[in-house]
Amino acid sequence: MIKAAILGATGYAGAELARLLSGHKETELVYLASHSYAGKRFSDIYPGMKGAVDDVLQEDDINKAAEHADVIFLALPAGLASSIVTEKLLEKCVVIDLGADYRLHDKNIYEKWYKTEHHSPSFLSEAVYGLPEIHREMIKGKRLIANPGCYTTCSILTLYPLVKEGLIDTESIIIDAKSGTSGAGRGEKLTSLYSEVNESIKPYGVTTHRHTPEIEQELSEAAGKSVVVEFTPHLVPMNRGILSVCYAKLVKGISDGDVRNAYAKAYGTERFIRLIDTIPETRYVKGTNLVDISFRINERTGNIIAMGAIDNLVKGAAGQAVQNMNIVFGLDEDEGLPASAGMPM
Amino acid sequence: MIKAAILGATGYAGAELARLLSGHKETELVYLASHSYAGKRFSDIYPGMKGAVDDVLQEDDINKAAEHADVIFLALPAGLASSIVTEKLLEKCVVIDLGADYRLHDKNIYEKWYKTEHHSPSFLSEAVYGLPEIHREMIKGKRLIANPGCYTTCSILTLYPLVKEGLIDTESIIIDAKSGTSGAGRGEKLTSLYSEVNESIKPYGVTTHRHTPEIEQELSEAAGKSVVVEFTPHLVPMNRGILSVCYAKLVKGISDGDVRNAYAKAYGTERFIRLIDTIPETRYVKGTNLVDISFRINERTGNIIAMGAIDNLVKGAAGQAVQNMNIVFGLDEDEGLPASAGMPM
Amino acid sequence: MIKAAILGATGYAGAELARLLSGHKETELVYLASHSYAGKRFSDIYPGMKGAVDDVLQEDDINKAAEHADVIFLALPAGLASSIVTEKLLEKCVVIDLGADYRLHDKNIYEKWYKTEHHSPSFLSEAVYGLPEIHREMIKGKRLIANPGCYTTCSILTLYPLVKEGLIDTESIIIDAKSGTSGAGRGEKLTSLYSEVNESIKPYGVTTHRHTPEIEQELSEAAGKSVVVEFTPHLVPMNRGILSVCYAKLVKGISDGDVRNAYAKAYGTERFIRLIDTIPETRYVKGTNLVDISFRINERTGNIIAMGAIDNLVKGAAGQAVQNMNIVFGLDEDEGLPASAGMPM
Amino acid sequence: MIKAAILGATGYAGAELARLLSGHKETELVYLASHSYAGKRFSDIYPGMKGAVDDVLQEDDINKAAEHADVIFLALPAGLASSIVTEKLLEKCVVIDLGADYRLHDKNIYEKWYKTEHHSPSFLSEAVYGLPEIHREMIKGKRLIANPGCYTTCSILTLYPLVKEGLIDTESIIIDAKSGTSGAGRGEKLTSLYSEVNESIKPYGVTTHRHTPEIEQELSEAAGKSVVVEFTPHLVPMNRGILSVCYAKLVKGISDGDVRNAYAKAYGTERFIRLIDTIPETRYVKGTNLVDISFRINERTGNIIAMGAIDNLVKGAAGQAVQNMNIVFGLDEDEGLPASAGMPM
Repeated sequence: MIKAAILGATGYAGAELARLLSGHKETELVYLASHSYAGKRFSDIYPGMKGAVDDVLQEDDINKAAEHADVIFLALPAGLASSIVTEKLLEKCVVIDLGADYRLHDKNIYEKWYKTEHHSPSFLSEAVYGLPEIHREMIKGKRLIANPGCYTTCSILTLYPLVKEGLIDTESIIIDAKSGTSGAGRGEKLTSLYSEVNESIKPYGVTTHRHTPEIEQELSEAAGKSVVVEFTPHLVPMNRGILSVCYAKLVKGISDGDVRNAYAKAYGTERFIRLIDTIPETRYVKGTNLVDISFRINERTGNIIAMGAIDNLVKGAAGQAVQNMNIVFGLDEDEGLPASAGMPM
Repeated sequence: MIKAAILGATGYAGAELARLLSGHKETELVYLASHSYAGKRFSDIYPGMKGAVDDVLQEDDINKAAEHADVIFLALPAGLASSIVTEKLLEKCVVIDLGADYRLHDKNIYEKWYKTEHHSPSFLSEAVYGLPEIHREMIKGKRLIANPGCYTTCSILTLYPLVKEGLIDTESIIIDAKSGTSGAGRGEKLTSLYSEVNESIKPYGVTTHRHTPEIEQELSEAAGKSVVVEFTPHLVPMNRGILSVCYAKLVKGISDGDVRNAYAKAYGTERFIRLIDTIPETRYVKGTNLVDISFRINERTGNIIAMGAIDNLVKGAAGQAVQNMNIVFGLDEDEGLPASAGMPM
Repeated sequence: MIKAAILGATGYAGAELARLLSGHKETELVYLASHSYAGKRFSDIYPGMKGAVDDVLQEDDINKAAEHADVIFLALPAGLASSIVTEKLLEKCVVIDLGADYRLHDKNIYEKWYKTEHHSPSFLSEAVYGLPEIHREMIKGKRLIANPGCYTTCSILTLYPLVKEGLIDTESIIIDAKSGTSGAGRGEKLTSLYSEVNESIKPYGVTTHRHTPEIEQELSEAAGKSVVVEFTPHLVPMNRGILSVCYAKLVKGISDGDVRNAYAKAYGTERFIRLIDTIPETRYVKGTNLVDISFRINERTGNIIAMGAIDNLVKGAAGQAVQNMNIVFGLDEDEGLPASAGMPM
Repeated sequence: MIKAAILGATGYAGAELARLLSGHKETELVYLASHSYAGKRFSDIYPGMKGAVDDVLQEDDINKAAEHADVIFLALPAGLASSIVTEKLLEKCVVIDLGADYRLHDKNIYEKWYKTEHHSPSFLSEAVYGLPEIHREMIKGKRLIANPGCYTTCSILTLYPLVKEGLIDTESIIIDAKSGTSGAGRGEKLTSLYSEVNESIKPYGVTTHRHTPEIEQELSEAAGKSVVVEFTPHLVPMNRGILSVCYAKLVKGISDGDVRNAYAKAYGTERFIRLIDTIPETRYVKGTNLVDISFRINERTGNIIAMGAIDNLVKGAAGQAVQNMNIVFGLDEDEGLPASAGMPM
């Protein structure tokens, strides 16, 4: 049994991770920590998990976690992970960071977009960007995994084959993304109140959202040249789900079949990616680690519209973290990960 | 492997059952049938289950199902099951009926409340009311199980220990129950439209809801005398969940401890019932086979308020059907049944 | 033009009041105050009212308000109103308090249920309980109006004719009430977050909710004897609306016609009460000052189920406050008050 | 008093129109018609309007309507209006068509996108596209007004000043629009069920939505050259609201101030358009005839993101129809039209 610790276990991503790990056959939860709720029982904070995860919450102390754990999951605010990960720690444990601190290879870009100092830039070159469908081979056996963001997982996976195979004009990419409200976290903010979110939709972070450079980094790598994207997230009145609708000019002469082949080549054997002919809807992936992807070509405009959907807390956070753990430790990649959605859920 | 068939697989209860069985280690789905969608792929109707349940849907033919299956689940409109179950069939297969046809022991009560003829009353004495927490021993090895209704499961389990132990005045019982909208089914009805359900709550079936006699039958049996209840269901703008808030006059002299003991005696070792101190919320059981129950005593009024919550499609339908199958066939009772809720889900 | 002030204008009730008054033909908003947002523009806090209410918010200073206003509306936390209303103030202005401080005639009951001291009990006998359909004559020309609570408005109006005419056993009253989430206010509380409220229903304040004594006071007065009620509120995932489902034993021999007559006698000429044959749904009164009421008699149990629905922010707060103002000042009672609901809204 | 008739009064747009007209000081509803519900009382179909609109519904007979009415509003399925409007009728009444039949100037484009024959193309040149903020002068005194679609109203108004003033590359326009579910109408369709819409977001009509040519017609006219747009609508789990997020390449050298000036020039004196600095949210215009518009320029990509929000049933349908009637008949343009939004509503 792999011994697992979670720091930041009472945020939504951390809690979903605790739930998934509690049903994972090869792992044992040995250290559940929460800054806000240390000393309380996890299932008193999340009564839905009573009977499944009843551990008493510890302090967010990564070194204590390391005394017990083979793998430590970090679900912490930006800037915190980078200040507590050390060489000594990594010699002892695998660290899978659900936060943003190790996702961007370039310290300067991180500090510019996150407006906070990076405390351990020396690990940036070691950290692997944990998007298995693209970087699976690099993830195996590694000790520091940067688990991708929710919008980014969905947007990158939707666009990757198009960029990789040179099928679109990379200067024309627009990503209009929509997220359920759990993506805003469990903080007690006015803008997260039911009465402020319900019965409305709004864009936010227009031109400035922090997931932008993460998408650009991965697409640039796939393209072999610098890619800049327009990325606009929206808040949708629903609990979970991310939908990325991506627009780009299709390269002249590219056919529907070419696009289909590119997706099949990239994802044909992926167990969590469903290439569908219909249009993605977030409900079809809710509660699962799946990604639904499809596309349409508009002959009138010359655009391709590529669409992807995920569950922000599963494939966009906790599920992908488990998937990464499974890969690092050589387990079945889908162990502990739901792959069909209840209807309606 | 137990071979399972579902008739009526494309209603919400049938589809949830297909999903649960697709993740059940000891069963194999051999016959999925749908009157409306025969010939189509199940996952084209329920794209969330693509990859998990891709069977082509068959005609709703119970005899063909019986050629392949050890257990047949019926998720059919009222009156249909009673016209297709035969002695010959039951000699070959176990039948678990998610509908109402075999729940009421008395044909006349059935016909009065359901306003339809019962076509096979001879089986009424054989059919077991499949509420495991009350009738587990009777369920084992039986061949015809009447799976309880959603409101009834929640209401009976919430009230049963109080009635059984004689702690309340059985002439004073009022059940004010609330249900998510999936309980109204997948029919294309005006009253089920998003724009007609959203942002509103309403009672319905006031004094006339068909689940009333089912609750009365079970509580009468527990009380050893005839019990009549006031039962008022409500439609709530949410996908899933049932909350039963039950009011009754507490018998003079009964203490909080007495009530606590009654619940512990009835359910202390039940894996799917959580006796909690806090107040049930449907979200804490969503997607699970769990029942959360608690109570409050009001010294000012002399009432007890007993509250229970379930997921109407799981413990209130498909999950309980799987639980019954597990019991009939001697499997682990919780095999294939989720026991912790995602937050938020 | 009547000059109006609002203290606590940026809570949901205060804001709805500002909106209603901005469309009222006979009033002018002269002083809008907010403790949290003083100095900011009202429409920066409530952008939906940009162009309609653009006043800069003042400090919550009742004496400054009194310098400008003929009527001061208070939408303040419990205990605050009772500490700022003075004889001198009342000599100058009419005060309509949307809070609870002057609703209960008995200081001790107030202090017991609200667990806070009452600072001006001398006004309790002067304050009029501002439920126009019951106390209209008493409201006319008064200077201190205690605007009823949301649950209480709905529950009292639903039960009043039954109690007044002696049609029910007043020892058997159970009120199972449901409220939209705006009733929880605009405070930044974990339990008010979208992800904590959505897709769930829960009872709360079971046996202890502060609206209980208010209901009991009014029903006792109507009955001419002490009435104690069981009152259970619920939180529903919707923005607005209150539904009160009230259960009681019908007195032997009382017919459907008797009940119908009692309601017609009490409310036959009321412009805001709609006595309907169908079942109330909160959506049909959303955004309006209306009350929809109907009932069912259950011959099997001997119970009557009386049901009422209102919009908690309009008839349950701001709308009723405007209605009270209209009565006090002798204006058309329905001026400024919407009386039909958009569908769907 | 202007005498008004509505054909198709029981769809959501028709019903909202009935509601708005019932509160309009200068109009009298003389003929309310519904194909599905003729003979029933309007308020039995829409109980929220009981007391406000209690008329008995007539047959959808435009000639009978013309016997009584000065203005006839049509809220009918595509293709129906064009088969019943005649010269004789227009000589007697003003017709305001909320449907699509007279919006497109080119019969061929209509027939291509709507896949139905146009029955009275001779009126196409006479019909005025009733978007007052652009075509106000043309609307005055006319007898046939084509009321714009919901998505189109929002998208055109958001983009118009940019196109008119030549600030964007018109070959780069992408409109990603989101709509509440009332936009799907009141038909009993599987895809409109609560359980199918709730907790999900999906694009639909990708590259093929019928509102596309309407947007293109108006933007082409503004640009003075042919404009083709990418238009992608989405279904959002909320009752009302449309959000149009429009992307385009900004012409080199155009500054934030230039854009601001263009909007001010186009809409500076418009009473229903609010040019805001913050980001539009549909809740801020819910229930109103308002349009909220703002924009952001992205220096990194060279794009402008222009965003607009409306209520699809008010400014996107019934409200705009009333606004058009007000203009045609020389009334106050905002008579009967709500201009501030309840919060939360």
